[in-house]
Amino acid sequence: MTDFFKGIPQLRYEGPESDNEFAFHHYNPDEIVMGKRMEDQLRFAVAWWHSFAWEGNDPFGGATFIRPWHPQDTMAHARLKADIAFEMFRILGQPFFCWHDADIRPETGNYADNLRTLNEITDYIGGKMEEVGTRLLWGTANMFTHRRWMAGASTNPDPDVFAFAAATVKSCLDATHKLGGENYVLWGGREGYETLLNTDLGQELDHMGRFLTMVVEHKHKIGFKGTILVEPKPQEPSKHQYDYDVSTCYAFLQKYGLENEVKMNIEQGHAILAGHSFEHEIATAVTHGIFGSIDMNRNDYQSGWDTDQFPSNVPEVALAYYEILKAGGFTTGGTNFDAKLRRQSLDPEDLVLAHAGAMDVCARGLKAAAAMLEDGSLEAARKARYAGWETAEAQAMLNSSLDEITAKVLGRDLRPKPQSGRQERLENLVNRFV
Amino acid sequence: MTDFFKGIPQLRYEGPESDNEFAFHHYNPDEIVMGKRMEDQLRFAVAWWHSFAWEGNDPFGGATFIRPWHPQDTMAHARLKADIAFEMFRILGQPFFCWHDADIRPETGNYADNLRTLNEITDYIGGKMEEVGTRLLWGTANMFTHRRWMAGASTNPDPDVFAFAAATVKSCLDATHKLGGENYVLWGGREGYETLLNTDLGQELDHMGRFLTMVVEHKHKIGFKGTILVEPKPQEPSKHQYDYDVSTCYAFLQKYGLENEVKMNIEQGHAILAGHSFEHEIATAVTHGIFGSIDMNRNDYQSGWDTDQFPSNVPEVALAYYEILKAGGFTTGGTNFDAKLRRQSLDPEDLVLAHAGAMDVCARGLKAAAAMLEDGSLEAARKARYAGWETAEAQAMLNSSLDEITAKVLGRDLRPKPQSGRQERLENLVNRFV
Amino acid sequence: MTDFFKGIPQLRYEGPESDNEFAFHHYNPDEIVMGKRMEDQLRFAVAWWHSFAWEGNDPFGGATFIRPWHPQDTMAHARLKADIAFEMFRILGQPFFCWHDADIRPETGNYADNLRTLNEITDYIGGKMEEVGTRLLWGTANMFTHRRWMAGASTNPDPDVFAFAAATVKSCLDATHKLGGENYVLWGGREGYETLLNTDLGQELDHMGRFLTMVVEHKHKIGFKGTILVEPKPQEPSKHQYDYDVSTCYAFLQKYGLENEVKMNIEQGHAILAGHSFEHEIATAVTHGIFGSIDMNRNDYQSGWDTDQFPSNVPEVALAYYEILKAGGFTTGGTNFDAKLRRQSLDPEDLVLAHAGAMDVCARGLKAAAAMLEDGSLEAARKARYAGWETAEAQAMLNSSLDEITAKVLGRDLRPKPQSGRQERLENLVNRFV
Amino acid sequence: MTDFFKGIPQLRYEGPESDNEFAFHHYNPDEIVMGKRMEDQLRFAVAWWHSFAWEGNDPFGGATFIRPWHPQDTMAHARLKADIAFEMFRILGQPFFCWHDADIRPETGNYADNLRTLNEITDYIGGKMEEVGTRLLWGTANMFTHRRWMAGASTNPDPDVFAFAAATVKSCLDATHKLGGENYVLWGGREGYETLLNTDLGQELDHMGRFLTMVVEHKHKIGFKGTILVEPKPQEPSKHQYDYDVSTCYAFLQKYGLENEVKMNIEQGHAILAGHSFEHEIATAVTHGIFGSIDMNRNDYQSGWDTDQFPSNVPEVALAYYEILKAGGFTTGGTNFDAKLRRQSLDPEDLVLAHAGAMDVCARGLKAAAAMLEDGSLEAARKARYAGWETAEAQAMLNSSLDEITAKVLGRDLRPKPQSGRQERLENLVNRFV
Repeated sequence: MTDFFKGIPQLRYEGPESDNEFAFHHYNPDEIVMGKRMEDQLRFAVAWWHSFAWEGNDPFGGATFIRPWHPQDTMAHARLKADIAFEMFRILGQPFFCWHDADIRPETGNYADNLRTLNEITDYIGGKMEEVGTRLLWGTANMFTHRRWMAGASTNPDPDVFAFAAATVKSCLDATHKLGGENYVLWGGREGYETLLNTDLGQELDHMGRFLTMVVEHKHKIGFKGTILVEPKPQEPSKHQYDYDVSTCYAFLQKYGLENEVKMNIEQGHAILAGHSFEHEIATAVTHGIFGSIDMNRNDYQSGWDTDQFPSNVPEVALAYYEILKAGGFTTGGTNFDAKLRRQSLDPEDLVLAHAGAMDVCARGLKAAAAMLEDGSLEAARKARYAGWETAEAQAMLNSSLDEITAKVLGRDLRPKPQSGRQERLENLVNRFV
Repeated sequence: MTDFFKGIPQLRYEGPESDNEFAFHHYNPDEIVMGKRMEDQLRFAVAWWHSFAWEGNDPFGGATFIRPWHPQDTMAHARLKADIAFEMFRILGQPFFCWHDADIRPETGNYADNLRTLNEITDYIGGKMEEVGTRLLWGTANMFTHRRWMAGASTNPDPDVFAFAAATVKSCLDATHKLGGENYVLWGGREGYETLLNTDLGQELDHMGRFLTMVVEHKHKIGFKGTILVEPKPQEPSKHQYDYDVSTCYAFLQKYGLENEVKMNIEQGHAILAGHSFEHEIATAVTHGIFGSIDMNRNDYQSGWDTDQFPSNVPEVALAYYEILKAGGFTTGGTNFDAKLRRQSLDPEDLVLAHAGAMDVCARGLKAAAAMLEDGSLEAARKARYAGWETAEAQAMLNSSLDEITAKVLGRDLRPKPQSGRQERLENLVNRFV
Repeated sequence: MTDFFKGIPQLRYEGPESDNEFAFHHYNPDEIVMGKRMEDQLRFAVAWWHSFAWEGNDPFGGATFIRPWHPQDTMAHARLKADIAFEMFRILGQPFFCWHDADIRPETGNYADNLRTLNEITDYIGGKMEEVGTRLLWGTANMFTHRRWMAGASTNPDPDVFAFAAATVKSCLDATHKLGGENYVLWGGREGYETLLNTDLGQELDHMGRFLTMVVEHKHKIGFKGTILVEPKPQEPSKHQYDYDVSTCYAFLQKYGLENEVKMNIEQGHAILAGHSFEHEIATAVTHGIFGSIDMNRNDYQSGWDTDQFPSNVPEVALAYYEILKAGGFTTGGTNFDAKLRRQSLDPEDLVLAHAGAMDVCARGLKAAAAMLEDGSLEAARKARYAGWETAEAQAMLNSSLDEITAKVLGRDLRPKPQSGRQERLENLVNRFV
Repeated sequence: MTDFFKGIPQLRYEGPESDNEFAFHHYNPDEIVMGKRMEDQLRFAVAWWHSFAWEGNDPFGGATFIRPWHPQDTMAHARLKADIAFEMFRILGQPFFCWHDADIRPETGNYADNLRTLNEITDYIGGKMEEVGTRLLWGTANMFTHRRWMAGASTNPDPDVFAFAAATVKSCLDATHKLGGENYVLWGGREGYETLLNTDLGQELDHMGRFLTMVVEHKHKIGFKGTILVEPKPQEPSKHQYDYDVSTCYAFLQKYGLENEVKMNIEQGHAILAGHSFEHEIATAVTHGIFGSIDMNRNDYQSGWDTDQFPSNVPEVALAYYEILKAGGFTTGGTNFDAKLRRQSLDPEDLVLAHAGAMDVCARGLKAAAAMLEDGSLEAARKARYAGWETAEAQAMLNSSLDEITAKVLGRDLRPKPQSGRQERLENLVNRFV
């Protein structure tokens, strides 16, 4: 045991009335929600990058955190970081975690060394996983921080970078498989452009399509049973990213024949930046059969960049889980906290309690969503609104032609009668549960 | 002749040095640009709705314009409006125009009357077209103003509204065909939602897919040779519209098997509202083979709604035409001014000169784009950036596997060398032309 | 009694467990919150314009509502509208309402007639007020709808419009005084510009400053004891409005010597459009001593225009009331629902229940805010963070000079130690109450 | 001479027809524009931070640039950096430069060392200035990068940080004075908040007001004749910054009695982030008598953060210089390129040519602005629009009362006649010049 979290107790559920800051007030892992343990519905994961690799920098400021595993350029510190990470997983009872290669091992600048250190550290982490009982929700490759990626990974104008990216993803997917990861994620932070003036859009998309196909081929080759996930984001760091939002990704997957192989990892902050609500993106993915997992954070509505804050607004979180539960809940996916402490939150307590608060927020949201579904009034109202389409005549119309329909409209002097959409009444209904 | 434009002369090209406000300074219809007459490259169209039907209302204000064809609820005024519109087409030498049914005939509330008045007014307009020589770029149905459309047209929860929409599009497509229109446009301003709480996303998209398929079937049935165009817009009037942007439309077209039948009508303002540059949306459509036509206006960058202003920034316009010319120029499409006067621009002179100024801006943009393409430096720089991909080895890599590529990376100790993206130098290059 | 609200009962408090849609679940007027009746803390007001004058139009659509008082161009209909408005006030137990002149009487086009009809209808309304017991929170002049105002009211380039505006405000302020209004509001929707190219910024601001001074002078002359309020909004309908946000208004008030005479009416949606949170704007006004009243609605975070929706997110509402209660609560101000039904919410039930739901949301927010203040932990944490400033030495430093402070920094080798800002822990604390 | 810029010639004016990339095409220092040499009108400055201190990092990526002065933690490298900076000033003929303390000397962590190295390096730079003939437009203190500033400088909850900030500004203002700087700038990147929950808005503003007063007092004490400038920015890095925009700063200056002592340094990107156009912010500052200087860069309109790109859009730049020239041009201020290379622009050529291109863009903008002013049509149109206010009667009205004006409106049955605002015609007029 390190003494980084010294004095911080393991958190237990104490109920909403407790005023113990170091307890859960709503998250009760064994409580049954819609037929499953709450832990199994929510499937929480800690993100290694924000919680352990990020040092508090922002575009105008340097590191603010001072951690025993700094500087992060040695394997000894990589192991210490892992030790402390698993201490936090134990304190919080977190069932899952996620990593990029660059979070868990130092970057050395060449592939062979990166591969070796990745294998070493993932062996080490594998041991910790057994010890603590935490599982891997997903692994991923960081192909955006090092300068080699500045002009893209699979979409780089330089084929050598494409090659380096392919080798990097192979190593990360292999390591994810080794650790029993349930998904593998690709986020294309540099797969996009800074200026159209120097960009061949069509060629870059074709390369990205072929790259993703290779990843799917490799998954099948090694027998990885997890889900390949793509994470949409409209921009930042790139001026424009190819995986703009769920619909854009769906267009891409269809074009390259991957819509049955790849699903979405959807982040609230990325949805917001693309001009959508979180629940819109989830519902869109569900509609197209490509919903996978979520990154549960929040963006500041007044900031135009990705603020990656821990969730705190229960009604918003409830609407997200409502769409997920309505679609049957997570399968391989889960709730990853892709959220970072504010850079002024310097203390180990902040790190633990930020996660604990977020887990409580999600638990409240989940329970509210379940209650709404079980109540059934909202779905009944939705169904009633479309009831007209259940008649045989309405269905037949869908198989007819403009001419036939026009004849009907003229013949019957059809004059549709608008019905109230009852939005405020439905919002009131939701407010009975959240 | 009416006296609405009394005293306003027919505009002629007088060159950039002329200070005659009632002349073209850059638009010279017969000048050859990249092998075609400028008029045939630009294919300008006037939008009937903004220029003749809109009365100057905004969300906080009533009509500001006082026109001889007000109120617009009689066929006599509809004909007068047409007379004056064609006078303006003649003054400006506009080769094309566009309409919604609701712009050119009064709304009566029932289909049979709407159909009759549409047929009457399009016969009348057909006569004016022959007389003045102006052609129809596209027709479209207004399925957003009347209260029957409040919850959508093809995506309405009420099948009767779907039927009314089908009959309405039939009448408009038939009329467009009768007038020799070169395209038919669908803009789904109400095809979207106000709240997910009362919306069945999947069912609505399926209905919209089937509806568009019927439109394509009808087109072939009647022998319409023009292009069916969909116009992306992310929101407004709806909180969320299904045709969010070009990529979203491409996902939709692929899902319903329409990607070879339907193309895009892209508007600058809509691109901006969706978080894209105009040139991005054009380049994306070109890449996917679905570029059709443009609505050339501008949005105020500080306003979060569709301001539909006449274009005035030549460098921006040049980048749009650059993508169009690079893709071979318009075929059936053109440059529609989907732009409205500011509501304080009350006078007939404002209406004429807003169009004239916009035509000059587009002409400058087109000529700059052509000069850049003919110069070739920009395309040469782009090609050089991707030169690495032209080797047989790079191409072979695209057909290999992660394992094979990894072996190569390890075997050669591949360490990619970043090359400058030269963005500012390319921007300087562009500034030599615009 | 009309039969517009036939069958809708008077709403009573039934508590959170009731599933009666036509009841209050949280708003309990007589319940004591921080020493006052809840009704007296919240001081709810209905906005005549959205609830009774607006017909459901939007920038792309016509009227959707069908009301017995349409068309709104006769005094008979104006009286019927008032009858029905007061029926709703009674059903909801609303203590206050607000109006523009243009909401309550028809616009005739000339001042004398407008004045006469305003006087008539306010006499009529005065009678209803006595009968039902509803009071006037504020009156205001609509100086943005009629075309005469298109280029501004007090900032119009035409002095005749300034004159018409002065006379109009006089009539509205006099009527507000007659009805015992507790405030008078000025919202400058057209006090701004569409383009800087035709605008004399300095002259327009000077005129607006002089105009507001005249209003204050008139208030004192007639003995009006209420508060003069200005309502900030950054834009819409104008491209740029002079009363951009609270700070901009404060700059303006100081420049023209009005900072002790005029306060702010702050709207959530306007705050959002200006890039601020609602609580920021309230806190800023409190800090500068110019907080007055609120317009409680919400804007859709994904829409760039003023959506004016009824509030529904309790945690957000709680943060607004927290700032208000911390500052001592409302004096003459109150909670005006400057919120409109969605245009698809056609039914009288929608109108009543939208208000009822909003009142419940506000009641929950108020109670949460009061509980947080009474708990005191949040304020204790804030105070502790600034404790260093309570020393005499720190206070003395504020009265010294750069040279003296530098000597101290050098002399003591001062190296400040950053302390955690504990943001997530404070957010967790808030979540215990909301 | 170092060999960093080896092979890059000193740039000369060659005119618009030259296709020499290493030449000016529009910037001709000695050409007379509105009575002054172009160099003296534009007063260009290079920003040390972006051009020499920034290493290409972004929120998701590490350094991309490889420079001979890296790592930047020694005085030897600080001097080398200065050598190369002045080589670039000479190549470009840049008359001015700007710095933060942290750009020009390494950060050591304690004040005494920082002071010593600042004095050393500014002595060194002073020598280079004499040698090359480049002058200091302004100096400033970086009070946002080091972790000590994370919660603000003058607004920090810790008085020790206030003290450190005071000492730091003293050292920078003294050094600026020593080097003959023409202005001193304060940009409050951390003077704001991350969350209102832990912030005492009023106390922080009071401290900031007192701090700025001390700076002004110190300026007078040491006899610094330059201008104290504050630089507005709405947010980033803070969630909310106190110096939000020009109007907010003006409110602040008035509150603390500093409106005659402090002026504005206005940046295009910051204006955009605050929801304004650049020309709006300039015109607002001019109107209030607080215009000082500009940071000439551009923000990407589709990005919600500060992209700090070199200017490239001539028409936009022209509108900014139009406001400046109309106000009489710069006095102590100038055109600082607070613009950074895109992080993929790796080469020394990129650095030189980015500046050269920006200088040409500004020169074109300036000349267009001057031509518009000299032509006079735009100002004549503006004056004509307000001509009604020049009558004695209109002026008298401003000194009357609501009652008197109302009597006039009634007596004359005043019905204002709206006049066209002619926006498009004015935009056409502008397009004749840009």
